[in-house]
Amino acid sequence: MIQSVAFIGLGAMGYRMAAHLPQHFDTVYVWNRNFEKAKQHATEYGTQAVELEQAVQADIIFSCLPTSQEVEDLIATVQIKSGAVWVDCTSGVPESAKKLSQQLKASEVDFLDAPVSGQTIGAENGTLTVMIGGEAAAFEKALPAIQAFGKLIKHVGDSGAGFAVKAVNNMLLAVNLCSVAEGFTTLKAHGVNLHEALDCINASSGKSGVTETVLPQRVLNREFPLTFALPLLAKDTGIALDLVRDAKLSAPVIALTQSLIQAASNLAEKDSDFSSAVKMYESWSKITLE
Amino acid sequence: MIQSVAFIGLGAMGYRMAAHLPQHFDTVYVWNRNFEKAKQHATEYGTQAVELEQAVQADIIFSCLPTSQEVEDLIATVQIKSGAVWVDCTSGVPESAKKLSQQLKASEVDFLDAPVSGQTIGAENGTLTVMIGGEAAAFEKALPAIQAFGKLIKHVGDSGAGFAVKAVNNMLLAVNLCSVAEGFTTLKAHGVNLHEALDCINASSGKSGVTETVLPQRVLNREFPLTFALPLLAKDTGIALDLVRDAKLSAPVIALTQSLIQAASNLAEKDSDFSSAVKMYESWSKITLE
Amino acid sequence: MIQSVAFIGLGAMGYRMAAHLPQHFDTVYVWNRNFEKAKQHATEYGTQAVELEQAVQADIIFSCLPTSQEVEDLIATVQIKSGAVWVDCTSGVPESAKKLSQQLKASEVDFLDAPVSGQTIGAENGTLTVMIGGEAAAFEKALPAIQAFGKLIKHVGDSGAGFAVKAVNNMLLAVNLCSVAEGFTTLKAHGVNLHEALDCINASSGKSGVTETVLPQRVLNREFPLTFALPLLAKDTGIALDLVRDAKLSAPVIALTQSLIQAASNLAEKDSDFSSAVKMYESWSKITLE
Amino acid sequence: MIQSVAFIGLGAMGYRMAAHLPQHFDTVYVWNRNFEKAKQHATEYGTQAVELEQAVQADIIFSCLPTSQEVEDLIATVQIKSGAVWVDCTSGVPESAKKLSQQLKASEVDFLDAPVSGQTIGAENGTLTVMIGGEAAAFEKALPAIQAFGKLIKHVGDSGAGFAVKAVNNMLLAVNLCSVAEGFTTLKAHGVNLHEALDCINASSGKSGVTETVLPQRVLNREFPLTFALPLLAKDTGIALDLVRDAKLSAPVIALTQSLIQAASNLAEKDSDFSSAVKMYESWSKITLE
Repeated sequence: MIQSVAFIGLGAMGYRMAAHLPQHFDTVYVWNRNFEKAKQHATEYGTQAVELEQAVQADIIFSCLPTSQEVEDLIATVQIKSGAVWVDCTSGVPESAKKLSQQLKASEVDFLDAPVSGQTIGAENGTLTVMIGGEAAAFEKALPAIQAFGKLIKHVGDSGAGFAVKAVNNMLLAVNLCSVAEGFTTLKAHGVNLHEALDCINASSGKSGVTETVLPQRVLNREFPLTFALPLLAKDTGIALDLVRDAKLSAPVIALTQSLIQAASNLAEKDSDFSSAVKMYESWSKITLE
Repeated sequence: MIQSVAFIGLGAMGYRMAAHLPQHFDTVYVWNRNFEKAKQHATEYGTQAVELEQAVQADIIFSCLPTSQEVEDLIATVQIKSGAVWVDCTSGVPESAKKLSQQLKASEVDFLDAPVSGQTIGAENGTLTVMIGGEAAAFEKALPAIQAFGKLIKHVGDSGAGFAVKAVNNMLLAVNLCSVAEGFTTLKAHGVNLHEALDCINASSGKSGVTETVLPQRVLNREFPLTFALPLLAKDTGIALDLVRDAKLSAPVIALTQSLIQAASNLAEKDSDFSSAVKMYESWSKITLE
Repeated sequence: MIQSVAFIGLGAMGYRMAAHLPQHFDTVYVWNRNFEKAKQHATEYGTQAVELEQAVQADIIFSCLPTSQEVEDLIATVQIKSGAVWVDCTSGVPESAKKLSQQLKASEVDFLDAPVSGQTIGAENGTLTVMIGGEAAAFEKALPAIQAFGKLIKHVGDSGAGFAVKAVNNMLLAVNLCSVAEGFTTLKAHGVNLHEALDCINASSGKSGVTETVLPQRVLNREFPLTFALPLLAKDTGIALDLVRDAKLSAPVIALTQSLIQAASNLAEKDSDFSSAVKMYESWSKITLE
Repeated sequence: MIQSVAFIGLGAMGYRMAAHLPQHFDTVYVWNRNFEKAKQHATEYGTQAVELEQAVQADIIFSCLPTSQEVEDLIATVQIKSGAVWVDCTSGVPESAKKLSQQLKASEVDFLDAPVSGQTIGAENGTLTVMIGGEAAAFEKALPAIQAFGKLIKHVGDSGAGFAVKAVNNMLLAVNLCSVAEGFTTLKAHGVNLHEALDCINASSGKSGVTETVLPQRVLNREFPLTFALPLLAKDTGIALDLVRDAKLSAPVIALTQSLIQAASNLAEKDSDFSSAVKMYESWSKITLE
């Protein structure tokens, strides 16, 4: 059914995600603002580096850009093939998804918000989680292409729902980043062995992705490898808080965490990994989490 | 080496923990305020229901009571065997552990704070996590007895350190309970399918013990089974906040969460499970998490 | 210079504000959606109840509506006299002021955001505080008309600045409402005489508009007279938080207060005065502030 | 009736408070740890610098020390005259007042917790506000002496109530310090004229002691004069939070503010005035409040 697919945006995630497509489809277009990267991808994986105009003639068009703004700007400049499905893997804004979905309907193009999780390693192994908002028919149509890089693929609701789930996921990550930093500086202040404490908590009810992975692999070893920039996490917490506000709900922990991550981001050095948010707590307490 | 062990406090946890001891030790005393329960335990598991005075003549004495206050009150009334190790599995107060440890030294009794996690199922299977504070020699001495019901057993620091780790663990549980309630009422307000969203988050960086276990097994099924009372979680968040305050640290998310759990506890019906804290959010949002 | 003025929106504030204009100007148009009110105003104060089309032919046009949305909707339907100054006394959204200011420039109409404070009593006495954003020339032009009801009249910055100051003012009101409710339920729980305590605090560094006026005149007497609806305060705290977010700042107390006022508003009965926010705290603590 | 009075603790406040006593009483003892200061006070104001043992033989004994700890330590070392009233003007801990009150009853000494507000200028002019906890009879007995430096003198409740009111007052000051810093950095980020904005807010519902006095006299002029040290404000916010916790109440804004003031205090230079707490917000926002 799907004759051609395209991938737009070959960043750390997109580059690896697009690499799986040639195994499943004969025609795979790639495009990137810095076009050298597209050509390199073509050489490396047998994709075709093409002009943007051609890329948007594919049956299934993936995009993976920094924010929804870039997606909106890019879509505004192109004439997408009628009948295509645009699958946006950006960690974007639900309102933007609704707007683009509505707008593209006029050209008979479906828009799915389809953010992913699983980091670069998941992209490389094709084991990403993909949370998708939009119409069921479009979801069914695009599914075979999404399966090239996704393992757990879920249709979570109407347009915007995918972005909403991703934003809430990243907000929960942010909440745990803050609360674990608070808890572990406190334990260290009381002379507790952090590595032993971590083992206990990871076998108990307080465990989280942060205690299982972020703290041991990024913080306690003092590596803070840049794979997901702190300002992007700040952006995502803002998307989550906007969802709360739009629905006129009250979410005190989310609201506070958005403030704290924003402060940590404002204080951080350029190109800091999201895990560097703990450094704000370290400066408050004069305690190093190691 | 260990000739006799005792277990004081046969509540939901203690009853099951003590049941493993006869497999490893010939002399196992049990005692409970409601003494019928001790006699029932003796009948069921072959332990000996004895007076408190005799129980505290064991080499290793376990206690598992609601709060440190009960432990202090009980210890004040007895003459413990010199050379014994008292292993307190209560989710208690670090300051109290330090005080009791100091006080019992005069009678040549060691005190270990040794709270457990793993719930009644872990107690039943003998697979509890045990986080222990106190002197290394006492830890080594008591270890064979603790192994009867513990799987991951960690010496996390000096006196009070075990209680501190447990308090921080439960605080992290509380933080996740609040933030997940906030995030999921928000997702539902936006029409997202909560079960699909949960699957995605449990495969992503925002996952936690609450998303993996509490939400699906207690909240979304509307069961809220009483296994850990909400006022006890409120108490534990207070212990964690006291640790923050004692060290003159700043922990905004912990401080806010303590307030929220206290409010939820004040609003809850009697005998509410800790997971009922989400109902406060449900009343704010008129949204039911199901 | 000013030949004619108009006042659009004769609510509790606008009705009283417009009443001062005939003392200073010969031609005073008034308009209200429910037109009976305009006719009543004309009879009572000698203003002229006119069609909206005629009202917007005045030299200075005041508006005082519930939110910026109503102002935008209304302006979209009319052809305003070239050279006029539109003075919007709504407690509005800074972004909306910037947009309208820009948009009306094309018709050579100036737009000033000019929210007021001082409540109905200040409107009646013509002693309102007016905080104004927009171009200095427009401010100078409209000043004589604003002086009809304003006492302290300040040009606080460019377009949007007036709304911003009002939003921050109302946010500070909200913060004090919450913190005073928290502090006074706590004092009452400890048996303190609230009236004596209030006298002390009002002579000390912790005093605020809430301790001086709101608590004694609305809460402690249990009257909660509806003069400023709680959902409108919730809206204003949202405007303040949006300002924080737009500037990528971190304001934890503001963020938390927005959440709390939103929860209090969601929980409140219809037509609750803003001071009713304290009732959320009363339900948490089972303590009545009286 | 009162034959003799004593004043213990001649700091910035106490030195000025004690200066009023010789106008009303013939025998005025003063004592200070650094005794040179007592001698200087005697020379300057005609008081008698005496040994601590003699000071506590007065009918009314005032103390004004940094914290309740110093008061407890000092009282533990002396034999107070039977029938005396000890009036402690320290900003102290309610629990400590209850304990001392109980303890001194055995020696037939009354203890009043009587913290003051009004700063050094109020101490100098004898116009302090005094909020008093303890027995009514003791209050009546000490009143003539308290009137020497107090203007508004209130009996607010039983033992501890005076300290409680002071702690809540200072907490409200702290809340306003934080929220005003948040609000004004936000206004500045949006180009608003801070001085004009301040005038408007001080005529509106958002005003407070911080907007009326602290912001213009300490912050905007960048003077931050040290009259009340930031760590002491942090201590007082802690006393207020303890009151909340003891009563098992929920006070999210108070809890968060305690955390923020603690962080600001931890980050501040030595000998920083409480108003320096705004500098934490300035570092987060790269905005200076001037």
